[in-house]
Amino acid sequence: MGRDPISSPRNQRVAYARSLASASVRRSERQTIIEGPAALAAAVGASADVVEVFALEGDATPDDLGLGDRAITVTRPVLEAISDTRSPRGPIAIVTIVEAGPLEQRDTLVLHEVGDPGNAGTLMRTAAAFGFQVATTPGTVDLWSPKVMRSAAGAHWATRLSSLADGIADLDAAGLAVVATAVRGGVGPNEAFATERPIALLVGNEPHGLPAHVVAASWRTLTLPMAGDVESLNVAIAGSIALYELGTRRGLGTGGSG
Amino acid sequence: MGRDPISSPRNQRVAYARSLASASVRRSERQTIIEGPAALAAAVGASADVVEVFALEGDATPDDLGLGDRAITVTRPVLEAISDTRSPRGPIAIVTIVEAGPLEQRDTLVLHEVGDPGNAGTLMRTAAAFGFQVATTPGTVDLWSPKVMRSAAGAHWATRLSSLADGIADLDAAGLAVVATAVRGGVGPNEAFATERPIALLVGNEPHGLPAHVVAASWRTLTLPMAGDVESLNVAIAGSIALYELGTRRGLGTGGSG
Repeated sequence: MGRDPISSPRNQRVAYARSLASASVRRSERQTIIEGPAALAAAVGASADVVEVFALEGDATPDDLGLGDRAITVTRPVLEAISDTRSPRGPIAIVTIVEAGPLEQRDTLVLHEVGDPGNAGTLMRTAAAFGFQVATTPGTVDLWSPKVMRSAAGAHWATRLSSLADGIADLDAAGLAVVATAVRGGVGPNEAFATERPIALLVGNEPHGLPAHVVAASWRTLTLPMAGDVESLNVAIAGSIALYELGTRRGLGTGGSG
Repeated sequence: MGRDPISSPRNQRVAYARSLASASVRRSERQTIIEGPAALAAAVGASADVVEVFALEGDATPDDLGLGDRAITVTRPVLEAISDTRSPRGPIAIVTIVEAGPLEQRDTLVLHEVGDPGNAGTLMRTAAAFGFQVATTPGTVDLWSPKVMRSAAGAHWATRLSSLADGIADLDAAGLAVVATAVRGGVGPNEAFATERPIALLVGNEPHGLPAHVVAASWRTLTLPMAGDVESLNVAIAGSIALYELGTRRGLGTGGSG
């Protein structure tokens, strides 16, 4: 990295990195960007394919992570041009997207038309923490967008991902028991999770939740117990609690940990 | 509202509303602002004291909520000047802050130096849903900031709030069993919640968690069980799951609901 830092946002590699802000470019190129030392360390730790790293002069992170051979030094304005955050500290890396695979026959979080990237990423993070695979319907936000990746905090590398071309029909075909979540009208966890079959837990968007026809087509509908007449929970919170409830019933264990 | 809309951001009432963006002004005036029809409806529904409402011409919300006598019509630039969001739809209302009260001897969520307004508000929302009171240490973000209020989605009107001048010493004095939360090293819920005493559940900031001296001074430390070697949960998720676990053990009931 003895050369002058790249200062032009029209540099070919910089322009390519910027183009990954577009979902359609990410899809065709099968690459996306991640930001910051923690995200980069998580990717390296999970043996993700890091293609290129843009860093400010003097940033030791690429060398520390063994990525010195793929590092490009850039000026602050160039880093800001690539980033989707306001005051990026860098580095920003181009990484290869992991292809979605077929559904496995095991407990699954299904993001059903979840449009908010923060909610989608937070739910992925919880799914990874409790050992679920993650599936998405066509209407869900691109899980590889920088905003989703930020909230997911490395979960992309720890979680199996699937796309459901035909929505919940795919879940039935895979032998999963479909459990919808709803703010009211459903049953508690004891009843909603009373099956030996792997469960596909469906979470919808905020504030609308799952469409009525999806709830009607589900095997059971889960409504978390709440105290009296209150506002509903945030969708990422409600979904995460449901994942925790199911995870502990599957042997995650609440007796002890460490 | 037959008069021309106020178009000057220097109008006295508009300037006052804008000044409430400052935490110190909110503290001295005991007023804050809320934004949008849902937040305003929640405040009215909870009999909060709505002082004044700024709305665009033709917005029926103030009249619909019985606040027509307190409504001031403003132009879009004025609404944007008052708001802390990018494209406010209005209305924006000045509301009276509810004074923090003394701690009651019951289960409590303690926000310990939680700096992120989104996490603080989301945790308040969960606490309201599961019937906890909420207490804050001096280092926690002002719960009456517009950002916290947005994430809390009306929980300010449904939850009892206390300030802990002396931190966790106040909790011991109130007879609460202090349970810290930590990513590792603690015990599971069975052990952490094994007491008839009301519990004060401490949640720290992200990414640092609770300081070691606070954990050491606690009665028990809770670590949620997770699957293998994964990233930790988001702090609002982990705190919310802990509240749910404690709530169900206190009789919230997971057998059924509706």
